[in-house]
Amino acid sequence: MSELELNADDTAVLIIDPQIDFLKPESVIWDKVGETVEENAVVDKLRRLREAAREGDVLVVYSPHEYEDAEYESWEHLNTIDQIMFDTRMFDVAGEGADFVPELEPDDNTFVLSPHKQLSGFWSNDVQIQLRQRGIDTLVLAGMSANLCVESHLRDAVENGFEVLTVTDATAAAGEEALEAALTNYGFIAHETATTDEVVDRLSAASGE
Amino acid sequence: MSELELNADDTAVLIIDPQIDFLKPESVIWDKVGETVEENAVVDKLRRLREAAREGDVLVVYSPHEYEDAEYESWEHLNTIDQIMFDTRMFDVAGEGADFVPELEPDDNTFVLSPHKQLSGFWSNDVQIQLRQRGIDTLVLAGMSANLCVESHLRDAVENGFEVLTVTDATAAAGEEALEAALTNYGFIAHETATTDEVVDRLSAASGE
Amino acid sequence: MSELELNADDTAVLIIDPQIDFLKPESVIWDKVGETVEENAVVDKLRRLREAAREGDVLVVYSPHEYEDAEYESWEHLNTIDQIMFDTRMFDVAGEGADFVPELEPDDNTFVLSPHKQLSGFWSNDVQIQLRQRGIDTLVLAGMSANLCVESHLRDAVENGFEVLTVTDATAAAGEEALEAALTNYGFIAHETATTDEVVDRLSAASGE
Amino acid sequence: MSELELNADDTAVLIIDPQIDFLKPESVIWDKVGETVEENAVVDKLRRLREAAREGDVLVVYSPHEYEDAEYESWEHLNTIDQIMFDTRMFDVAGEGADFVPELEPDDNTFVLSPHKQLSGFWSNDVQIQLRQRGIDTLVLAGMSANLCVESHLRDAVENGFEVLTVTDATAAAGEEALEAALTNYGFIAHETATTDEVVDRLSAASGE
Repeated sequence: MSELELNADDTAVLIIDPQIDFLKPESVIWDKVGETVEENAVVDKLRRLREAAREGDVLVVYSPHEYEDAEYESWEHLNTIDQIMFDTRMFDVAGEGADFVPELEPDDNTFVLSPHKQLSGFWSNDVQIQLRQRGIDTLVLAGMSANLCVESHLRDAVENGFEVLTVTDATAAAGEEALEAALTNYGFIAHETATTDEVVDRLSAASGE
Repeated sequence: MSELELNADDTAVLIIDPQIDFLKPESVIWDKVGETVEENAVVDKLRRLREAAREGDVLVVYSPHEYEDAEYESWEHLNTIDQIMFDTRMFDVAGEGADFVPELEPDDNTFVLSPHKQLSGFWSNDVQIQLRQRGIDTLVLAGMSANLCVESHLRDAVENGFEVLTVTDATAAAGEEALEAALTNYGFIAHETATTDEVVDRLSAASGE
Repeated sequence: MSELELNADDTAVLIIDPQIDFLKPESVIWDKVGETVEENAVVDKLRRLREAAREGDVLVVYSPHEYEDAEYESWEHLNTIDQIMFDTRMFDVAGEGADFVPELEPDDNTFVLSPHKQLSGFWSNDVQIQLRQRGIDTLVLAGMSANLCVESHLRDAVENGFEVLTVTDATAAAGEEALEAALTNYGFIAHETATTDEVVDRLSAASGE
Repeated sequence: MSELELNADDTAVLIIDPQIDFLKPESVIWDKVGETVEENAVVDKLRRLREAAREGDVLVVYSPHEYEDAEYESWEHLNTIDQIMFDTRMFDVAGEGADFVPELEPDDNTFVLSPHKQLSGFWSNDVQIQLRQRGIDTLVLAGMSANLCVESHLRDAVENGFEVLTVTDATAAAGEEALEAALTNYGFIAHETATTDEVVDRLSAASGE
């Protein structure tokens, strides 16, 4: 496992699904994710990553997750996790579940992608072109949930030639087993894994000033 | 060239960029596209396609085009057409250019995809999964502009295994030459090409009732 | 979790990396994968799936993995698993590691895709179009390794609208932890999971005769 | 339209379908493409581009086109051009039509991708990852045919954030109209267009020595 260089020029912090339905007790699936979200203090970790990125002139990019009535009513090929999300109307744009958590409200250093569907924005939103058009080829990846949307963004970023540092504790999942699965897979698929503590200094120094 | 079966079950009308900046005199590039847009009466053709689709229980899907300040300011690798779009701030969400034309305002038979970037939603929005999740594998394709976004959606739909009927007169382009280029290429790449007149009856009968 | 209908018309068995370097003691990474490969008797399970598929007129599709000198020498952005594969010259077309295992030599019911790179053929070979052009929208997925290439094919198949049954014991991985990670994630991402025993009867009856 | 910097470090010459079935009188569709292939002396232009690339330490990458019996027999959703290719068994690996033309036989400065299907390797072969893994973000694009496979590689390269110079006379097509369509579209979609004469000096100087 290598140690990536984090330079403001070509690095972004990519945060997946920083939304109520994953990170706040109002979440429609809090009974599933609440425990590891609180254990890892994910909101606070993401807040620290954002702050460090801003200090280091590193762009923060959000890949949010959204569904609406027309999708809940018409999708015919739901896999297991989609079935759960659709049954609970997770990330419903008509409610508050799809809102960003207040502590992570986009600021002027945040670019918000179109909402992704299913697991990865590389198949359903503009993540790839927004990064490439800005000359970004290195990602610091964090957010929710560890073994589903974060891991799929990781896999697809790698398939597209990006180098990825995945933050191991700024994420959580539907249970310890799911979180463990993600951490195991990050160890194979990421270019580097590191904790928030290990990453924030490198991010805040990324502008080279 | 085959004749596609248009059944309500597995067909959608996919309309590209039905927005002010392509279809109305307020367009920032009306001097380039106005002539063929008016010649082909594109707005009226799209309106008829929509109406026929509704009659035949065929879903209408919009793939719109949008940019915002953060993109105008930070994209570094603009090709020729992007440079023109960025210089004119075409499809600026802050203005009216990105609005749908009033005659084509989405109704309850219209599903609006996330905005695509550059040329094709298959690389930058949710077009592919929204179609597949509804069991749609056949497309009636129309909109703007003929040789750029429409043609790229056509090419990518074919690469993804969809069958595509491209409507040859519900589209226009930046000049006759560009329109001719599109029509030539449709002849090779589409599964079928047809005029609006030829398509509307088949669409309105697509429910099989 | 649903139970998928397996019909010869629209189903394929998709087998990932059925090659020496994953499945035979000559593998360059046998010390890592040998234990679970033998535990699960993966070669025999894949053989049984193939046989059942043939009986039921279900196409078998291989997505193999290959590298050559020019890649070992020039790739600059290796993630952790690629670094291991490149260090050991895994799947080297110049050696025997990339050969199919003799028990699984392609027969006249097998279609062999172009070699995929990294983790998933959906990003680097012709898997998607070969399936769509044959009207296949349902996959029985097996092969190697569980949490890397199999899981990435699973994730990308789902993103492309396929329904996927992942076979939980016709696969193995670099250690029990990696295998567990895969099984955990299959439980979320697949439409159905089942053992080889549970699948073979459904496959052999898929032609409906 | 910008003028791209061609540096050996990050540039490749990407040549599409440099094969008998497009470039030699033995082609199964020579009656369609022969005239503009000879007019433009495409083989000689591609030879000169290759030679200049070698001089300038610029990698040459081939994206070939191939089909085999199993595809001719089982593909069910052929568009117009695929129907022509399948009727004539174009690019049949069992014959000579899929062979590289002798003047353009791959040498030690050529990397040959997996065969692409339909129109673009970005949907069906390893073009994207082979380029990104070598740090290539700038392409000099040429080959066959102008308005189909070359243009689709161009469109998809742009969607993936590459900068592309398309060579306007090292290509040909099925008739003057098809060639004109391509040139019209290159003018919108490429970052730069240039003739072979204009490009060879820049390529041969790309190593900066």
